[in-house]
Amino acid sequence: MTHSNWGRWGPDDEAGALNLLTAATVKRGVEQVTEGTVISLAQPCGPVAMTSPHRHSPARFMDRDAGDYAVGTRRTSNFKFAEDTVLMPTHSGTHLDALAHGWEGDRLYNNHPSADTRSIRGAARCGADKLRPIVTRGVLLDIVALSGSALAASTGVTDTDLERAYEMGGVQPRSGDAALVRTGWWERGLSTTDYHRDEPGLTLDAAEWLAERDVAVVGVDNYAVEVQPSEPGSMFPVHLCLLHRNGVPLLENLDLSILADTGRSEFLFMLAPLPLEGSTASPVAPIAVL
Amino acid sequence: MTHSNWGRWGPDDEAGALNLLTAATVKRGVEQVTEGTVISLAQPCGPVAMTSPHRHSPARFMDRDAGDYAVGTRRTSNFKFAEDTVLMPTHSGTHLDALAHGWEGDRLYNNHPSADTRSIRGAARCGADKLRPIVTRGVLLDIVALSGSALAASTGVTDTDLERAYEMGGVQPRSGDAALVRTGWWERGLSTTDYHRDEPGLTLDAAEWLAERDVAVVGVDNYAVEVQPSEPGSMFPVHLCLLHRNGVPLLENLDLSILADTGRSEFLFMLAPLPLEGSTASPVAPIAVL
Amino acid sequence: MTHSNWGRWGPDDEAGALNLLTAATVKRGVEQVTEGTVISLAQPCGPVAMTSPHRHSPARFMDRDAGDYAVGTRRTSNFKFAEDTVLMPTHSGTHLDALAHGWEGDRLYNNHPSADTRSIRGAARCGADKLRPIVTRGVLLDIVALSGSALAASTGVTDTDLERAYEMGGVQPRSGDAALVRTGWWERGLSTTDYHRDEPGLTLDAAEWLAERDVAVVGVDNYAVEVQPSEPGSMFPVHLCLLHRNGVPLLENLDLSILADTGRSEFLFMLAPLPLEGSTASPVAPIAVL
Amino acid sequence: MTHSNWGRWGPDDEAGALNLLTAATVKRGVEQVTEGTVISLAQPCGPVAMTSPHRHSPARFMDRDAGDYAVGTRRTSNFKFAEDTVLMPTHSGTHLDALAHGWEGDRLYNNHPSADTRSIRGAARCGADKLRPIVTRGVLLDIVALSGSALAASTGVTDTDLERAYEMGGVQPRSGDAALVRTGWWERGLSTTDYHRDEPGLTLDAAEWLAERDVAVVGVDNYAVEVQPSEPGSMFPVHLCLLHRNGVPLLENLDLSILADTGRSEFLFMLAPLPLEGSTASPVAPIAVL
Repeated sequence: MTHSNWGRWGPDDEAGALNLLTAATVKRGVEQVTEGTVISLAQPCGPVAMTSPHRHSPARFMDRDAGDYAVGTRRTSNFKFAEDTVLMPTHSGTHLDALAHGWEGDRLYNNHPSADTRSIRGAARCGADKLRPIVTRGVLLDIVALSGSALAASTGVTDTDLERAYEMGGVQPRSGDAALVRTGWWERGLSTTDYHRDEPGLTLDAAEWLAERDVAVVGVDNYAVEVQPSEPGSMFPVHLCLLHRNGVPLLENLDLSILADTGRSEFLFMLAPLPLEGSTASPVAPIAVL
Repeated sequence: MTHSNWGRWGPDDEAGALNLLTAATVKRGVEQVTEGTVISLAQPCGPVAMTSPHRHSPARFMDRDAGDYAVGTRRTSNFKFAEDTVLMPTHSGTHLDALAHGWEGDRLYNNHPSADTRSIRGAARCGADKLRPIVTRGVLLDIVALSGSALAASTGVTDTDLERAYEMGGVQPRSGDAALVRTGWWERGLSTTDYHRDEPGLTLDAAEWLAERDVAVVGVDNYAVEVQPSEPGSMFPVHLCLLHRNGVPLLENLDLSILADTGRSEFLFMLAPLPLEGSTASPVAPIAVL
Repeated sequence: MTHSNWGRWGPDDEAGALNLLTAATVKRGVEQVTEGTVISLAQPCGPVAMTSPHRHSPARFMDRDAGDYAVGTRRTSNFKFAEDTVLMPTHSGTHLDALAHGWEGDRLYNNHPSADTRSIRGAARCGADKLRPIVTRGVLLDIVALSGSALAASTGVTDTDLERAYEMGGVQPRSGDAALVRTGWWERGLSTTDYHRDEPGLTLDAAEWLAERDVAVVGVDNYAVEVQPSEPGSMFPVHLCLLHRNGVPLLENLDLSILADTGRSEFLFMLAPLPLEGSTASPVAPIAVL
Repeated sequence: MTHSNWGRWGPDDEAGALNLLTAATVKRGVEQVTEGTVISLAQPCGPVAMTSPHRHSPARFMDRDAGDYAVGTRRTSNFKFAEDTVLMPTHSGTHLDALAHGWEGDRLYNNHPSADTRSIRGAARCGADKLRPIVTRGVLLDIVALSGSALAASTGVTDTDLERAYEMGGVQPRSGDAALVRTGWWERGLSTTDYHRDEPGLTLDAAEWLAERDVAVVGVDNYAVEVQPSEPGSMFPVHLCLLHRNGVPLLENLDLSILADTGRSEFLFMLAPLPLEGSTASPVAPIAVL
């Protein structure tokens, strides 16, 4: 039988596994800090962000810049300024999927109606504005180290792999953990097109295993967390397991290379999604504090 | 003589006062955590974000939603998904100004040429992608508590006010602090138009005082950190002092009400700007951990 | 019984009353040209276009401009250029509604399924790309001249008014005409908010009368062609009559002041909608040739 | 000595060769109509428009669609509607370059300062809002017919070619003509990438020849009117000749295939640019009326 968190935090809950974040998990996270080092886990963002070819291209438009002054924009004092507007698919670059992002039938996580996701209001339920800041223990599950090399395209990361990675790190899974899985896919330096093809990633068994261990969030250094293509007859089963049945937000497009170089398996993990009203994801810049 | 950080961290530095964040300040920040409570300091984001009337209106566009399936979008499995694209001025809602945002003459902070801020590449120097994650001690300087009420429009918060607020909080200013100043402006629930008018905020003396104390970042619950209008003959002198001369990024449009309710003056402050390539600011969701 | 054009041009037709445009109507239009004068009927366009407050604000972003060269953008020759990107609701400013814009039940004009209008492909049926260029006789129905003044808010223009306006112009309605109705609403110089409120415009009887006369297109100098508010219990009945039942595209936000000043009632009318794939309208710049 | 129109229509002129459009040229255009046939010369528009890879991708966002009703959007009557917002580079698809698009030194056409083209106001001089509707005689200069096949990449169309094409069409060049040159480039059905490479097009001599003949507008079925690459040491010399020195707006990305099939060399040509405030071009849907 598959693990599910529907109803676990009441019928109105829209935060899912982020409910596993408690005072105790915050403190456990904070306890990991020994060196005072901060490491960004974010890929490049904005016009240079990796984006699936089926999505719009991110863009930045300068609304005022230095050139304007050079050709005569009037100033009333010595102050000058520049500003800009960005256009971006919320699923471009490093981002956290909101629970409204994937579902089956006509129900989102926790039986919320998918029908409340429409053009005008966006995701009125389980949108990015319903996510919460994450401050917890992060665990690096370094499958690259385990395997001796970056995973090949379409390689599944199984529950056994995760167990071994925990062991290798000398860490026990704990409720409320941020589980970060390194496949090495991002580090290959692929073109956008190749990157968005048959990525290595979690199998459904691995996802179930993580859900059963009550992780708060799962992040991977690939574009969709899960191995692609999906098993014949299924599509994004890991999304359905984690996002939909267990309310675990998915953190995609991580850069775990620098973190991996430190050799640390445990650390303080922090991520504060933009409360983008009605969006199905938020671009984020997660960090590890060692 | 005015305080300046130009040259302090070498001629190539684009991170400014964020250099004050060291292993020691990270640890000092982490030491503030006693309860394990996480508080968001962010105002609403996305299409509902407050935005200055001279800027573009933020928008969210649904690229796929539940309605599409309801009217027949083909699926090859039971998986359904929704996604969206956002358009937003980077200075809308809660955001961190990059050092490229304001300058005088033709030089940004640390003598970088303002000429490198153009239409095509955006801010090639001192853009949001040059900011760094902030993990440090936060100090709430609660001028509302000090004054007994939310400040009226155009009220200056002076260096003396800041000194008193530190005293009231029983805190000594330390290098690398995040100084968060509560004026109560946001809590008034003003219309967008009224909010973006004559706000209470820092005076130039207050800004100098903070720069001298080596704060890493200054945040206020108003739209421009500093009192508006500026003194006759000047425009945004606090921006010039903090951003331009001292490399202190400015954190605007905070919501400090919930934090203030806790009565805590010191806490772990965390903020991870999106490394938006070439942008002059990043929308952020800063947090306090108590 | 109400007039309907469903089925009139076959079950696959997506062009509606634009089928009334034939070689004969083109020639009749061309025959109106006596002076060789060209008059634009367009309101301002782009960032300055009038837009209903419920829609996104139009914007123009400079992708390259003179300032870029002034601050050092490299050139390989003496050639310099500027370019820009526009964002606009297709229903902002002067625009032609595509037949996919309005419907009732689950059927567009001519029994096409409304279900083919979705996030991803837009209006796959009856979109702006299915409109056609219009070259025909235009007739100015000058209700301002008829009434002696610009119409007050919420004033209905009735079938009787239209009859009288034809008479006053000494013109007989003909199949394939472009019927342009001047209410004077635009000429009042209202704020965007006031302009988009209770406008004068066509009553349902007037719309039926025009449909029966086989006009190819109806244009008015207001934002929705029809009088607002609609009769109690109905919403946009003129849209349903003209767009939906009769396939008559609606031309909104005209400026008819200069044309009216000429005293001419008949003229060559030309309008070439952008074939915007899947859009529900096209911004246009219609002209009268006298 | 090169032909120039600077000063010809006074120092304030921003319309350039469109001043050649007079009552007489309108009438001459109208006189070409014999059959009453209307032919669109536009390539696909909107998200499917051809766009140079260095520009942003056009997009259409549905702001309301049929799916919204299917999942429960509240209606107060039987009326339903759909609407959308478009994002597009003004130089995508079929478009008319405004005179502000290209220049050399710091002067636009007619000595207007290029410095007035900035981020905030866009092209304050010679923008798309200064263009005018074009109603005139169009002449098809069918180089494909002349050559016996579509031109190969980087093939120059010379003044001699144009002379022969006029001859072949049995037409004399006249002041105020719209000169449409068919190279066959668009008809090749190239990928966007290949289309935007080394196109066949006008040589500088051909451009001078057309300017001397006082054409009002020049249109070609390629992306930049002129042969690419430019002669060594020069960049877009035809743009400088026509747009900059002679104020002739350039009409790019035409589809001349259907028109060519008719065998007609003369016709009524009509094009009404959107008066996009401050833009450097306008998407258009030009037509030929036979």
